[in-house]
Amino acid sequence: MPTTIRLQTLEDATRERTIKRLKIIEGQVRGVQGIVEAGRKCLEILMQVSAVQEGLRNVGKQVMRNYPENCATHAIRDGGGPEIYDELMEVIYKYAR
Amino acid sequence: MPTTIRLQTLEDATRERTIKRLKIIEGQVRGVQGIVEAGRKCLEILMQVSAVQEGLRNVGKQVMRNYPENCATHAIRDGGGPEIYDELMEVIYKYAR
Amino acid sequence: MPTTIRLQTLEDATRERTIKRLKIIEGQVRGVQGIVEAGRKCLEILMQVSAVQEGLRNVGKQVMRNYPENCATHAIRDGGGPEIYDELMEVIYKYAR
Amino acid sequence: MPTTIRLQTLEDATRERTIKRLKIIEGQVRGVQGIVEAGRKCLEILMQVSAVQEGLRNVGKQVMRNYPENCATHAIRDGGGPEIYDELMEVIYKYAR
Repeated sequence: MPTTIRLQTLEDATRERTIKRLKIIEGQVRGVQGIVEAGRKCLEILMQVSAVQEGLRNVGKQVMRNYPENCATHAIRDGGGPEIYDELMEVIYKYAR
Repeated sequence: MPTTIRLQTLEDATRERTIKRLKIIEGQVRGVQGIVEAGRKCLEILMQVSAVQEGLRNVGKQVMRNYPENCATHAIRDGGGPEIYDELMEVIYKYAR
Repeated sequence: MPTTIRLQTLEDATRERTIKRLKIIEGQVRGVQGIVEAGRKCLEILMQVSAVQEGLRNVGKQVMRNYPENCATHAIRDGGGPEIYDELMEVIYKYAR
Repeated sequence: MPTTIRLQTLEDATRERTIKRLKIIEGQVRGVQGIVEAGRKCLEILMQVSAVQEGLRNVGKQVMRNYPENCATHAIRDGGGPEIYDELMEVIYKYAR
């Protein structure tokens, strides 16, 4: 895997937004615990779990968001070839499920 | 949707196991917050988010687990026909993603 | 894996319906080839590929459909315990993606 | 959606490779019909359907592959801002399932 992808970290603004989202998700997970404890219907639990999964998918999307821009910078400035985009696709298709 | 599926709740033992799993997942979500705050690499964040998603999928599987048994009881005892299994498939394919 | 799940085959009616669906999917795959050859937009190709994927997921759902009923028969007639439903969940969560 | 993403088509080389893959997938779909007709086990059918789904996912990946490069060209040459990468993420997360 090329350095650009391996070394990539989040920018400050994205980092804060990501933590914020994760705090919401943490609250949602506690919420699911609550409805399980309260003996609520399985269907309601499944729906709530599904909502948390969607939230986590969006966290992944936000983290993934900076890659294409940084790959472009790398490809142009450092003369990186198309390999970096091949690697980008691998990472995306691995984690964007 | 038939009553059997709509009214289904978790048995006590499953309820406790589900809450236990959700507590672990809550801890994992806090763990992801930690690595984001620490400025760790995007790839590591994506991997950890992926692990939490897998954990939630397993919670869903555990909740879904009682349905087939209850549908069977219903189909036999109450003379429920194949419709209940059709509905079961709908629920499974909606939430087992 | 228990014999009931390992040995399960499709009933005649389901078999015919499944083949019918697969023929439609075969036609759709040829249709995607056509729009690729015609030089159509990537977005249109992605949308069509997505439709075929949905079609295949529904084939899987149809094949999976008989399992719960057969597991129930097995559990009752042959005194099969809850293990068969555990295995059923494994199969479902493996293939219902 | 920005023009760059909406208007994107496949390059000749990718087009040919995509058609080639789709022909293989067409053959696989016929293969699944064959095993269904032959009355083979449900598990075997599910496995084969799963393989075709994976093949289609890879077709989608190949089609998606050119976007990041073209978005980069657009962002630099035409002064396109970060919006194009936002849109790219939307498309990717919609179709990379």
